[in-house]
Amino acid sequence: MPREHQGPLARLRRGHEELVLRLLRTHGPLSRAELGRLSGLSRTTLYDIVGALVDGGAVVATAPAAAERRRGRPVETLSLHPGAGQAVGIDFARRAVHVAAVNVAHEVVGSASETHPAELDWPERVRLAERLVAGLGGGTLRLGALSGIGVGVVGPVGTPRPGAEGTGGPEGAGGAADRTDLPVLLGKRFGAPVLVDNNTRLAALAEATWGAATGAQDVLYLRLSHGVGGGLVVGGALHRGAYGLSGELGHITAEPDGRRCSCGKDGCLETVASVGAVLRAHGGAADLAAFLAALPHDPAAARVLDEVGTHVGTVLAAVCNALGPEVAVLGGELAAAGPALFDPVERALHAHLMPVSRARGRLRPATLGEAAGALGAIALVLHESPLLDRYPAPDSLE
Amino acid sequence: MPREHQGPLARLRRGHEELVLRLLRTHGPLSRAELGRLSGLSRTTLYDIVGALVDGGAVVATAPAAAERRRGRPVETLSLHPGAGQAVGIDFARRAVHVAAVNVAHEVVGSASETHPAELDWPERVRLAERLVAGLGGGTLRLGALSGIGVGVVGPVGTPRPGAEGTGGPEGAGGAADRTDLPVLLGKRFGAPVLVDNNTRLAALAEATWGAATGAQDVLYLRLSHGVGGGLVVGGALHRGAYGLSGELGHITAEPDGRRCSCGKDGCLETVASVGAVLRAHGGAADLAAFLAALPHDPAAARVLDEVGTHVGTVLAAVCNALGPEVAVLGGELAAAGPALFDPVERALHAHLMPVSRARGRLRPATLGEAAGALGAIALVLHESPLLDRYPAPDSLE
Repeated sequence: MPREHQGPLARLRRGHEELVLRLLRTHGPLSRAELGRLSGLSRTTLYDIVGALVDGGAVVATAPAAAERRRGRPVETLSLHPGAGQAVGIDFARRAVHVAAVNVAHEVVGSASETHPAELDWPERVRLAERLVAGLGGGTLRLGALSGIGVGVVGPVGTPRPGAEGTGGPEGAGGAADRTDLPVLLGKRFGAPVLVDNNTRLAALAEATWGAATGAQDVLYLRLSHGVGGGLVVGGALHRGAYGLSGELGHITAEPDGRRCSCGKDGCLETVASVGAVLRAHGGAADLAAFLAALPHDPAAARVLDEVGTHVGTVLAAVCNALGPEVAVLGGELAAAGPALFDPVERALHAHLMPVSRARGRLRPATLGEAAGALGAIALVLHESPLLDRYPAPDSLE
Repeated sequence: MPREHQGPLARLRRGHEELVLRLLRTHGPLSRAELGRLSGLSRTTLYDIVGALVDGGAVVATAPAAAERRRGRPVETLSLHPGAGQAVGIDFARRAVHVAAVNVAHEVVGSASETHPAELDWPERVRLAERLVAGLGGGTLRLGALSGIGVGVVGPVGTPRPGAEGTGGPEGAGGAADRTDLPVLLGKRFGAPVLVDNNTRLAALAEATWGAATGAQDVLYLRLSHGVGGGLVVGGALHRGAYGLSGELGHITAEPDGRRCSCGKDGCLETVASVGAVLRAHGGAADLAAFLAALPHDPAAARVLDEVGTHVGTVLAAVCNALGPEVAVLGGELAAAGPALFDPVERALHAHLMPVSRARGRLRPATLGEAAGALGAIALVLHESPLLDRYPAPDSLE
């Protein structure tokens, strides 16, 4: 071992290298300026560290394509070596399986989806996922380089953590017993660590990594779909809460004397802002597509969305006052309604956000669509896979 | 440098040592079993690491006092060496300065308070704080061993962070210009890093470290006082939000058509649940002491608290649904009302928490009283002082 790998100076340097590698792994390609801002390292130290990592092959520097160059000197971006690892994300939605693969340079290797009947059993769903994964990137996915499988599922997922009281999340009790051996099943198939989480929470992480809130550290995500759910990213990491029950924005009370919700209590946001609630309140449209198509010339539909948006904005404002996020992202099928929904949401935010906060947070529409769950599962691997924590130290221990 | 300080094995071991030291620094004295649970290290590794740290003097093992022993073998607790560092906390409240000092073993060296007129200027407040600190522990405070000064102040404190958009918090704009040089002033006096934060947020951190929520990683704190404020502890660390505006639970809307709040919007929780709001709603009591004294035989007072508690529980439930905390702590002068306040809070929590969450989180009264701000300032130093991050590596670099 050469001299410069020893002693406290080398340890400090090693810490800086690991910081740079972790930032590239979790954020994807970054310029030197962005790396400097995120790492807090001095310009001199950073250039020195990056130079050594590029020389060693762990990091690659890419000049922008000619068409993308602005005036002046082109800005190089740095990323991890694409061959150093891949991550697969699988989203087991209610009626579809979505899969995607990304390498550690954040390049999409491939993605695929297939719908299925809601009653399809778990072994069949897993077989479907395997088939879709096998076809990714024209069959070029290198399973040997797989750093982890991220998996999104519907409903609460408990994540017991050292230090939290109690030992399990709601998984055992929450009617999800038929999927509890999913990690074991998938781990055996792919020979890589399996990380499971709720797919709406994963969509939040995806939007914070590649979508509407790219680069933001504190993000609130609300999804208006057949159910209403959400997720929080805190300090750049997925937030789960003490019992894996974080992000249940759909079950904040919107109407104190409102309808009974599927969760068992009354007047949840889900009872007024889900796709089903919107169609019920409107009374005319056969489905969401018909409702949205009619929207431009249907004052009744606009009134329904005005009321929904007011409820959504009021709930978002309450959570924003508590959390102070940088970006709030609104997604799900209902977000396709556009300004007819977003305008009343913005008005309610303005009315209920603490005035000093009004100019600070931003509301944005989600950008990743139905791929968000699978992409979030990948982001989870890139953030938390135990294999990647050690990458790419050539002398690290098993 | 001896051979075993080199190479990857030593680096791994060093990482484990740092983890154990950090846990003792942030949690205070722990048993080996607690350390094992929090660190995730195997029993063998942990005993080995702890043995070396005790041999080297960085960690001390203490058998419990005879009176405290339960049946069976007494359980030793481990703590950092008390002489290795001290932290001072100063809470600049509206009408008082509270100070306290704690060593890195979490032993209180001393504490003191003095009230002052609300209009006292900042140079005078700082002089008062200096005098109180100088008297701590009978003048035995070793300033040379000081690892940091934590400071609590009233109102929002911006904490710009690498990665967050924008460069400053609301401090400059929020009418706090007269205290912006506080860190410099105090840093010069004490020759140690100064960390400043909002004192209600610091109270949240104190309750999570030494108070009602000791050991919990995700904590929600709400303080009902002359103002209504709050704080969040997420993953064991103080949460600030993207713009230093986290924890503003007092400005979540409780009554959509309610009174104008001092913050500029209408119907905030503060407008219905502050001490002033309670006295106004009651209409009879001259001050809070009189109100609380009359409470046992004054149905009107009980009705006021019932309504206040309902608002408080509804707001707490909304934030709990979003965050999934382990413990919610209710503090401030109004919490002294006891069951007359806590019972309606619990009822509203039950009505508005997602049913699957009802049995999981806990509501507890705050236990640290008016010392919470200064203690939280100390906890902030123990968590975040740049000096302590390196402690006690004898060969670490400046």
